[in-house]
Amino acid sequence: MIPLRSFVVNSSGKLLSLPRQVPKYYGKSILSKAPAHYEQVFNPARLASTTSSRMMGGQLPASRKRANRGEFSSVESDDISFFSNMLGKNRVLTNESEIEGYNVDMWKIIQGQSRLVLRPKNTSEVSMILAYCSERNLAVVPQGGNTGIAGGGIAVHDEIVISTSLMNQIEEVDEWSGILVCQSGCVLEKLNEHLAQFDLIVPLDLGAKESCQIGGNLSTNAGGLRVIRYGSLHSNVVGCEVVLADGTVLDCMNTMKKDNTGYHLKHLFIGSEGTLGIVTKVAIQCPPKPKAVNLAFVGIDNFQNVLETFRLAKRDLGEILSACEYLDHETLACVSENLQMKSPIENSFPFYMMIETSGSNGKHDEEKLSMFLEKAMNKEFVSDGTIASQPSHIKNIWSIRERFPDALMKDGHLLVYDFSLPLESFHEMVEETRGHLGPLAKRVTGFGHLGDGNLHLNVTMDEFNPATLAKAEPFVYNWVAQRKGSISSEHGLGSIKRDYIYHSKSPQAVYYMRELKRLMDPKGILNPYKVIPHT
Amino acid sequence: MIPLRSFVVNSSGKLLSLPRQVPKYYGKSILSKAPAHYEQVFNPARLASTTSSRMMGGQLPASRKRANRGEFSSVESDDISFFSNMLGKNRVLTNESEIEGYNVDMWKIIQGQSRLVLRPKNTSEVSMILAYCSERNLAVVPQGGNTGIAGGGIAVHDEIVISTSLMNQIEEVDEWSGILVCQSGCVLEKLNEHLAQFDLIVPLDLGAKESCQIGGNLSTNAGGLRVIRYGSLHSNVVGCEVVLADGTVLDCMNTMKKDNTGYHLKHLFIGSEGTLGIVTKVAIQCPPKPKAVNLAFVGIDNFQNVLETFRLAKRDLGEILSACEYLDHETLACVSENLQMKSPIENSFPFYMMIETSGSNGKHDEEKLSMFLEKAMNKEFVSDGTIASQPSHIKNIWSIRERFPDALMKDGHLLVYDFSLPLESFHEMVEETRGHLGPLAKRVTGFGHLGDGNLHLNVTMDEFNPATLAKAEPFVYNWVAQRKGSISSEHGLGSIKRDYIYHSKSPQAVYYMRELKRLMDPKGILNPYKVIPHT
Repeated sequence: MIPLRSFVVNSSGKLLSLPRQVPKYYGKSILSKAPAHYEQVFNPARLASTTSSRMMGGQLPASRKRANRGEFSSVESDDISFFSNMLGKNRVLTNESEIEGYNVDMWKIIQGQSRLVLRPKNTSEVSMILAYCSERNLAVVPQGGNTGIAGGGIAVHDEIVISTSLMNQIEEVDEWSGILVCQSGCVLEKLNEHLAQFDLIVPLDLGAKESCQIGGNLSTNAGGLRVIRYGSLHSNVVGCEVVLADGTVLDCMNTMKKDNTGYHLKHLFIGSEGTLGIVTKVAIQCPPKPKAVNLAFVGIDNFQNVLETFRLAKRDLGEILSACEYLDHETLACVSENLQMKSPIENSFPFYMMIETSGSNGKHDEEKLSMFLEKAMNKEFVSDGTIASQPSHIKNIWSIRERFPDALMKDGHLLVYDFSLPLESFHEMVEETRGHLGPLAKRVTGFGHLGDGNLHLNVTMDEFNPATLAKAEPFVYNWVAQRKGSISSEHGLGSIKRDYIYHSKSPQAVYYMRELKRLMDPKGILNPYKVIPHT
Repeated sequence: MIPLRSFVVNSSGKLLSLPRQVPKYYGKSILSKAPAHYEQVFNPARLASTTSSRMMGGQLPASRKRANRGEFSSVESDDISFFSNMLGKNRVLTNESEIEGYNVDMWKIIQGQSRLVLRPKNTSEVSMILAYCSERNLAVVPQGGNTGIAGGGIAVHDEIVISTSLMNQIEEVDEWSGILVCQSGCVLEKLNEHLAQFDLIVPLDLGAKESCQIGGNLSTNAGGLRVIRYGSLHSNVVGCEVVLADGTVLDCMNTMKKDNTGYHLKHLFIGSEGTLGIVTKVAIQCPPKPKAVNLAFVGIDNFQNVLETFRLAKRDLGEILSACEYLDHETLACVSENLQMKSPIENSFPFYMMIETSGSNGKHDEEKLSMFLEKAMNKEFVSDGTIASQPSHIKNIWSIRERFPDALMKDGHLLVYDFSLPLESFHEMVEETRGHLGPLAKRVTGFGHLGDGNLHLNVTMDEFNPATLAKAEPFVYNWVAQRKGSISSEHGLGSIKRDYIYHSKSPQAVYYMRELKRLMDPKGILNPYKVIPHT
């Protein structure tokens, strides 16, 4: 018998096994020329905005550790000339006021330092830009609608921003298969508007749909409200075209639903946050537009009954269940206090659920939903509720859900977390975090995509307090790791959570991620300081 | 401006772009020590069985070019001793009669030459076996239920067969999330039987369900009848555990539905046919068991109306549509002539469809299906039909579908193809192939998973005729490539189609596949001669 592996314990106390033979590159930087002082720890804490406004221009937190700059070249005037010749001057932004919006995320968590924004219109231009940057050793960061909330699309230092906003052409909709082909810069809601003529919809829906782009959605494996019905983008993206760091165009642009010829490379680009390549085209399977939609908003007395209601909904609503959200009293109270929005039901409950159905026959769906609610009330899972069937009423109720982040931010400062957890532990986590933080938090609330096991845990404060942050992290990450959850269910790691990757991934997995990065981007110019920790 | 890329034309006349800078390893063997004479072309033609029986022991075609053996070690008596010490003698098979069944695929297309079969029971044993084989430079082939039809699970030379059949433990079913965790050797139908107590089903169904194993399903990204409803395994597998070539256990064993922490490595093992690692555990999201199932079998006058019927089904049956198969007259005639099975409807038609619904409310589903069929007949898309609602009737109709391959093989010899194509070209391909082959074929028929764009094209002969094969291939592969289809929609490439990979994949994609193989299996011991062509 040969001894197989040694073991290490990570910061959460989780036992981790190591590869038997530690491969020779193990632990080396993905940036071949990274200087020694790069070792300095990059603080992955998500820092809160100093303003409750989501508009650009607010003040950002000043103190925040940043990864040291890699040994990349700096942009020089010759580079600007080259890009201006290629793209024309109006697609090469260097003026500070023009760049400002590209240097801060929508939520004002991250301040970038880019001094150059390029706005290509097609794959060929992206390819030429990257071939040039690779040659010159210039670092870049791809940016879509800039709606990410983990810092993945913002320059950490002076990376060149490659904005996909002008790559917004819809190329084709196959009416038989329902497959849409478009450039990566198409805005999600614009795709939906285009698909309406074919009676199709995009199989994903998120609060940011008016601004987020399909390429960014793909790169972050965006989740949202309808994963329970249509699955993730790993299910729905049938093909993509990607430009690699050296300018190579990697054609994974299949437009067929099924293809088992070789390794399924496209999945490497779904969720890798632009660190392996820049997505330039997408082919996506679109489902038929539902003929009928209904939304129930219900009040529930205890968390066990939230779970029972979910299980009943899965069984009785089955194929028409299209969203299953939960929120706690504290979340709704915050919306009511800070935004003066009214609850859809009169009485207060410890928990609420939003249960949506979408189907091909309105009469059938209403019947199913009524029968389900009757059963849920008879069994005393649900205490009160209302059903909306009119689009305007449905929109009103969803708008409450969409304003949760705004309401929470109005408290002053907000720490928002995005976890996958066993369903039974959702409320336990909220309560334990509240107990752990005590008076350091103004509010600790929970809501999320219950149907997908995805909890958003929120901690608010009157103003940013480093003590709160220090008490919250890594406490919450450890809590999740101990339950084998995911420390980022849908938001991604970006720059702010990358150093916590070992809380959800084994050292072997991170080792192979780093090797993949090295394979596809040997100079490390593509979205550096993101996703994979430096050591 | 810099010139970006040169171009090459592949054998199908398709224009292919090459990476701008041809990477230094481009074109090198994945087997670092492969001898020069390995260059000899491995004939990828799928050869037919000489017997129509699916039982073991029939005679296999004798003449078939085989890839030259790589420079691996040969199994010696010390190796047998080592494995016997580790596993016990009854799990180390060396006797020819014991091994026979592992050396031929269910369809009798491929004859392997393995002289050693190992039957581990758990991950740790698989890890020890691979660590040892890696050290000794012994090639291996993982084998599940041995139901593959591209040769992926059969030794080409004397690779050691690692059978997962004894790794058949179901570990856990989470009743809240519906996520099942089990070892990779669990038989698909056994999982279904176990899930029944939780009112759940596995989200895939194929003819081979009584023998195929979930690890093999994952490794080949098996498709089948229900992809239209539940999506592919990329949608449903939430985690897996894999042993890499050097014995490293790669833990991608997430049991949460959503996880966006780093690169989504698990997808590399879905569909890579055991060439990157041996899957030892699987976590899979299981949907609720439908409360009602209905199956319609309809006759249709022309192919345009097949498409119209499909579109109407998608719109009107929507969320309850769970299978949408088509077959042509020639397929049904073959079943009737060769197996004396009766058509479910009296009259003959050029085309038939099998349209299944599964839902949570029987009354609603029947109503939807009746309304759909009424509309389809009023519009004259459908000419005749029958609906089965009783489980026994449904099973009878599906059993006709499941016997297609048997019926076709009874003609004498069968070439079966598995393509993704634009729906409009399904019948065109069958007709053009029939015209092209003329008297060289006895029958040319088409059936398939219309709802997924997946055509199974079949060519039968009285007895194997090399002239038929030579005229059929690469004709059919070229035909598919010209329409940007996939030359393997669900069966995989295995050993018999690997040299046609460029018909569906770009040289850049194959280059990176080869590099991935080199990264994960530097010695190339894991399932050699499969999926990725040698040069």
